[in-house]
Amino acid sequence: MHDVHAYAAFSATDPLGPLTISRREVGPHDILIDIKYCGVCHSDIHHVRGDWGGVTYPVAPGHEIAGVVAAVGDEVTRHAVGDRVGVGCMVDSCRTCPSCQKGEEQYCHHGATMTYGSVDRDGELTHGGYSTHLVVPEDFAVRIPDGLDLSVAAPILCAGITTYSPLRHWGAGPGKKVAIVGMGGLGHMAVQLAHAMGAEVTVLSQTLNKMQDGLSLGADHYHATSDPETFKKLVNTFDLILNTVSARLDLNAYLSLLAVDGTLVNVGAPSEPLAVQVFSLLMKRRSFAGSLIGGIRETQEVLDFCAEHGIAPRIELIPAQKINEAFERVLASDVRYRFVIDISTLKK
Amino acid sequence: MHDVHAYAAFSATDPLGPLTISRREVGPHDILIDIKYCGVCHSDIHHVRGDWGGVTYPVAPGHEIAGVVAAVGDEVTRHAVGDRVGVGCMVDSCRTCPSCQKGEEQYCHHGATMTYGSVDRDGELTHGGYSTHLVVPEDFAVRIPDGLDLSVAAPILCAGITTYSPLRHWGAGPGKKVAIVGMGGLGHMAVQLAHAMGAEVTVLSQTLNKMQDGLSLGADHYHATSDPETFKKLVNTFDLILNTVSARLDLNAYLSLLAVDGTLVNVGAPSEPLAVQVFSLLMKRRSFAGSLIGGIRETQEVLDFCAEHGIAPRIELIPAQKINEAFERVLASDVRYRFVIDISTLKK
Repeated sequence: MHDVHAYAAFSATDPLGPLTISRREVGPHDILIDIKYCGVCHSDIHHVRGDWGGVTYPVAPGHEIAGVVAAVGDEVTRHAVGDRVGVGCMVDSCRTCPSCQKGEEQYCHHGATMTYGSVDRDGELTHGGYSTHLVVPEDFAVRIPDGLDLSVAAPILCAGITTYSPLRHWGAGPGKKVAIVGMGGLGHMAVQLAHAMGAEVTVLSQTLNKMQDGLSLGADHYHATSDPETFKKLVNTFDLILNTVSARLDLNAYLSLLAVDGTLVNVGAPSEPLAVQVFSLLMKRRSFAGSLIGGIRETQEVLDFCAEHGIAPRIELIPAQKINEAFERVLASDVRYRFVIDISTLKK
Repeated sequence: MHDVHAYAAFSATDPLGPLTISRREVGPHDILIDIKYCGVCHSDIHHVRGDWGGVTYPVAPGHEIAGVVAAVGDEVTRHAVGDRVGVGCMVDSCRTCPSCQKGEEQYCHHGATMTYGSVDRDGELTHGGYSTHLVVPEDFAVRIPDGLDLSVAAPILCAGITTYSPLRHWGAGPGKKVAIVGMGGLGHMAVQLAHAMGAEVTVLSQTLNKMQDGLSLGADHYHATSDPETFKKLVNTFDLILNTVSARLDLNAYLSLLAVDGTLVNVGAPSEPLAVQVFSLLMKRRSFAGSLIGGIRETQEVLDFCAEHGIAPRIELIPAQKINEAFERVLASDVRYRFVIDISTLKK
C-alpha cells in the first residue's frame, strides 16, 4: 500500500480538503500512474454532494485523469514506465459479459467499477484523480497521443468520450444535421467532434453569450433557446440532438426539432423524470435515448481522433487548493470550458 | 358525385347512425371501390369522440377497408375492375417530399390525407370505410393477395401494418427478443408477425386470460403485467418492446425490461405525456420511440407477408347496425380480436 496525497469530500456539505489515501500495491496486471492533471466534471459535484444517492465519505473524486506511468506489474504488456496515459470514468469491469466482450465496458452487465465511489475488486472504495497517484489495471488505461498536451487530454477522458460515443453511435457525419444542446464542458467538445466528423452543427444554448466561441469551434449555426422563435424556425430539422444539459428542460420542445427518424440523446440525467409527449414521437418516428460515457476502446479512439483533428478542450488550469471555488463556478456555468487541476500543486 | 350509404358519427356523444354521403367522380387516376368489409379500430372511437381534438361532424370512420374495384379512371394502370384491393389509413399525400419519395407517406412533410376526418385535395371532408363505396387515387390502394379472405385482409390495413412497420424498422428477426405489450387487435397481429419474422416473442398482457391464444399465435412466452414478479424476472431482457396499449402505463417499468441498446416503441399515444426516467435510458443506451402506421409500399408488403405465412387476424363479423355495441365492447376489451363490419348489411 502506498499513501498518497489527495483532495477529498468529507460530507455532502463540507468543502473538499486534503486527505491522505492508500493506493494498492501494483499487481501483475496493474500500472502505477503519476497523475499530472485531472479535469473537474459536473459529475464530481453531483457525486460528492449526494445528488445521486448513497455516498461513502471521505471520497476523492476525479475521472479525467492524465499522467505518466511510474511503475508496471510483471505481466503488463500495453504500457511501459514513462508512457503518457489516461484514465476515465472506469477502472475495471467483469470483462466477460457480452457488453465487456464488445468493448462496451460502460454497459457491463455486472456493473463497471467506477473510478471513484465504487467498491473495487479488493473490497476497497475507489478514489479518483484529485490525487497524486493511481493504480489501475493496464486494460483500463489508454495511451495519450503525442499531439495532445496532458492538460488538455484530461477532459477528453470524460467530456470527450461522453459526447464522441453517441455522435458515432447515431451516425453523425456528412449530410447529417446535428444539434448540440448546451455550450459547457461537454457541449464545446461535442461541437468540435461533430464538426470534425463532417456533420452540419447547430448549437442550442440558453443565450448567445458564447456564440463567437461556438462558431470558432466549428458550429455552423448558433441559436438561443431563450428565444421562442428558435423553436419555430427549427421545427423538424435535426437528425440528431445531443443534449448535454442535465437540468430539466422542456423535452417536448426539443423533440419537435427532430426530423423524421431523428433521435434526441441525453448524456446527463436529471434526477426527476422528464415528461414525453408520445404523439410527438409517433408523428415522425422520433426516438428519445440515453448514452453513458463510452468503452475503453472508444476512449482510445476519441483521443486519437482529437490528436488527428487538432481538437482540444479549452481549459482553465487551477491548483488543487482552488477546487471548492471551481465547484461553485461550475454550478454557476462560469467556466470556459473546463477546469483542470494541476496535480503538481498537490505534491508539495 | 355518387351518393352512397354510410354509418357516421353526428357528435362526440350520440351513437353512430345511417347517413348518405357523397363520393367524388372517378378521376383519371382514381379507382372506385365496392367495399366488402371494414375493420373497427380503436382509433375510430378516439376520433369520433373527439379524444384527439377538433372533429367535423358528421363523419363516417373506418380505415381498414377491403373491397373490389368497380370502376377505374382513364389513366389507371395499377388496378383493374374486379381486382381485390384494400385501403388503409391514408388516401393521399404530397408525393414529392423526401418521406413520400421514400415511400413513407405516413410521415409526409405536408401531412398525409387521412382516410376519414381529413380535408381532401378537393376541399371536402374525407369519409372512411363504414360505407358502401370509396373513391381513392390508385396509388393509395393495395392489392389483396389471393390467399387472404377480404374479411381478414381488412384489419391488416391498420392493425397489421401498424405493428409490421416498427417490427421491420427495428429489426425483429432471428436472435432478437421481442416483447409485445397488449393482446388486443394490434397485439395479436404483432405476435404472429414477429414470430413469422423469426424473433423470440414474449407477450406482456395484464392477465393470463388470453395466454392460450397468445401461445397458439406463436408467442414463446406469456407473462401477466399485473404480477410484479414479471418485472423482476424479465429485467434487461428485450431488444425490442412493441407497446400496443394506448392507455397510460408505468413506462419506466417497461423500459427496465430492455437489454442494452433495446428500444421501446409506442404505436399508440396516450393523450397525457409519459414520465421517463432518463437514468434508465442512459445506463443501457435504451431508446423510447414512436411509430405511425406504415407507408403504402410497406402495406403491400405486410399483406403479401401475411398471405405467405398464413397470418390472419381473428375477427368477429358484425352487421353495420351493431357498430355502437361493438364500440362499447372495444372499450371494454371484450373482443377477440377485431370487429369487422360486413358492409353488405349497409347495402340493403
